[in-house]
Amino acid sequence: MLSFEDVLAAQDRVSQTARHTPLDYSHTFSSMTGADVHLKLELFQRTGSFKIRGATNRIATLSTEERENGVVTASAGNHAQGVALAATRIGVDSKIVMPEHAPVSKVKATRSYGGEVVLSGRDYDAAAERAHEIEREEGRTYIHAFDDEQVMAGQGTIGLEIYDDLPEVETVVVPIGGGGLISGIATALKGKNEDIRVVGVQAEGASSVAESLRKGRRIERNSVETIADGIATRTVGERTFEIIQERVDEVVTVTDPEIAVALTTLLERSKTLAEGAGAVALAAVLEGKFDCDEGETVVPALCGGNIDLNMLTNVVMRGLVETGRYLKLRTVLKDRPGALEELVGILSAQRANIYAIEHDRTSRDVAMNDAEVELDLETRGPEHVEALLSALRERGYEVDVLV
Amino acid sequence: MLSFEDVLAAQDRVSQTARHTPLDYSHTFSSMTGADVHLKLELFQRTGSFKIRGATNRIATLSTEERENGVVTASAGNHAQGVALAATRIGVDSKIVMPEHAPVSKVKATRSYGGEVVLSGRDYDAAAERAHEIEREEGRTYIHAFDDEQVMAGQGTIGLEIYDDLPEVETVVVPIGGGGLISGIATALKGKNEDIRVVGVQAEGASSVAESLRKGRRIERNSVETIADGIATRTVGERTFEIIQERVDEVVTVTDPEIAVALTTLLERSKTLAEGAGAVALAAVLEGKFDCDEGETVVPALCGGNIDLNMLTNVVMRGLVETGRYLKLRTVLKDRPGALEELVGILSAQRANIYAIEHDRTSRDVAMNDAEVELDLETRGPEHVEALLSALRERGYEVDVLV
Repeated sequence: MLSFEDVLAAQDRVSQTARHTPLDYSHTFSSMTGADVHLKLELFQRTGSFKIRGATNRIATLSTEERENGVVTASAGNHAQGVALAATRIGVDSKIVMPEHAPVSKVKATRSYGGEVVLSGRDYDAAAERAHEIEREEGRTYIHAFDDEQVMAGQGTIGLEIYDDLPEVETVVVPIGGGGLISGIATALKGKNEDIRVVGVQAEGASSVAESLRKGRRIERNSVETIADGIATRTVGERTFEIIQERVDEVVTVTDPEIAVALTTLLERSKTLAEGAGAVALAAVLEGKFDCDEGETVVPALCGGNIDLNMLTNVVMRGLVETGRYLKLRTVLKDRPGALEELVGILSAQRANIYAIEHDRTSRDVAMNDAEVELDLETRGPEHVEALLSALRERGYEVDVLV
Repeated sequence: MLSFEDVLAAQDRVSQTARHTPLDYSHTFSSMTGADVHLKLELFQRTGSFKIRGATNRIATLSTEERENGVVTASAGNHAQGVALAATRIGVDSKIVMPEHAPVSKVKATRSYGGEVVLSGRDYDAAAERAHEIEREEGRTYIHAFDDEQVMAGQGTIGLEIYDDLPEVETVVVPIGGGGLISGIATALKGKNEDIRVVGVQAEGASSVAESLRKGRRIERNSVETIADGIATRTVGERTFEIIQERVDEVVTVTDPEIAVALTTLLERSKTLAEGAGAVALAAVLEGKFDCDEGETVVPALCGGNIDLNMLTNVVMRGLVETGRYLKLRTVLKDRPGALEELVGILSAQRANIYAIEHDRTSRDVAMNDAEVELDLETRGPEHVEALLSALRERGYEVDVLV
């Protein structure tokens, strides 16, 4: 099983390619929660996520012969970039198999870090199969994304940094996908001080660990569904599960809307971009998913920031909707002069700003002489949304809330 | 005229409320430009912009009587928040007049910093009129956003920080709206070392300084139009213009698409959110708007990150379109079985990912038996967009590019 010494031994190797990322006190999140919140900003890591740490430690501990034969892995995301840059910096050849429809930005980034990208397969499983073929055919070493002690040890250096920067830390909150990150961090922190609490966070649509812990054996989901694609795994690793059982104090889940709110709040208040998986730990803190004392020193690990920008705009919209700041609704107007003006007058009296308005007389769903209107509105919070909807309904409008 | 000593004197006062913001070397932007680019990350400043520095210095230098009578200002944006927090921290009462339709997030933030918000007037000019009435009626001191020496001196502390962190700096690039920021920074830097070059940047749709410098007198625009709302001014201040004439080496302009690309690239590569005005200096660097030697040490000042999140989604989309990463197009299909499949087949052969597809047989613009299709596509760059459009046109499709 991974030891504290393994993590300590990784530190010098990891520092060849990865930076010591900032741990910043957050005034905003402390005042929102009553805790003393410090953000571990691993999203400012090279390649935009922590994966380069584990990949570096794994590649740096290869034998000379293994290095000469190169490495291979499969990934649709951050691990691809981490392996590519780690290998290039250490001087090892890398092949990265990515699914055919991987986001353009991730393919491009992986190439820019010096990895040879092989596009193959419809999904991750198919890409992984191809990568294992390459492993056999070319004698390359396969770099597993999480279920590998050297990889875990590399990720654990984040725990060492947190402790070095803030030895009085009481609780560290860490995302769980395959479990490599939390295994490393928990091993590092418990090695420093047994009393530091480590809380794991999964996305509700990809949670398996809480139930696995209850049953005492790894369970596997049939499917996963979450905006936090970086932790959308059906189960954790074998090796990581053992460590989680022994060293993680508590595992909680957060929903996609909670993740969207955390990501949006971080962007708006801290000007910092997290990906979905990078926001789950903050979501767990903001939503009070675990007990926390007033003034407790809590560190959510924001582990990555590689979100597709198209995805981002959807997530931000969801975040605004969830916090009552954005409202999209549909209603029907009698198609007569002044009808739209009346509607706009009601909105104006309620001080709702109109972002967009779409007025359609040809919709098939409404009677011949009526017109359908869709409105995008800026609102001031949940109470404002309720007041606005009531005002419209009182005046006889049938209103559908669209998002 | 503002002196170096004024800026030095501001430093202790400003540090009461503002933080020394990071100056971070950017691997990404250095390799994109060949220069040695360090980002002055003032967008991580409290209240999300530099304005708190000037407001603090101004309020901290009021007489006891002036402090007791409180302050007033007008602003739709960052200055509102800066004055509110600076006043609260120093223990002075503040009233902030904001236009009636100011973004909800800015009104809310200003209130959260302890300012009393007065919503009045259709635009900034009307709000400013009301603020001056309050100044007279209540004997409050009006805090000008830029044309005030104590305000400029406060902003100038950014220049001192840049020099302290990187004494070998050669060129500093600074946005110009009213001119307060660049006046302070130029005064600070030239005081430290005459040879440091200071480059000013305006948005093309709000540029007045380059022409003013040529004519030797301040010219005023009739209107302004730019996504960089923080620097959307018709002219600079009287006092700031004098300083710009004497201490700024060069003034350049950037277009809205260039700003959108810089903002999007910063978000994607550095996980950092700038507002439009906060991205103009980076845009000028990336677009090579001024001569720059290989390896020259260049610092763009990213002065704020308070962008409305709805605005952000539009700007990001523009950034993706400009870099050939997003394509929205409309075409017409013969309305027969298999027509859509054929179109999708062409896109798939070109490896363009489809984000959204809208298929409408009822549009009035097309012949009775045809169907209009709108497609949102992920593309890999300008060449890919061209190849894709050619492939469609070769197969007989009439294609309109929509954004």
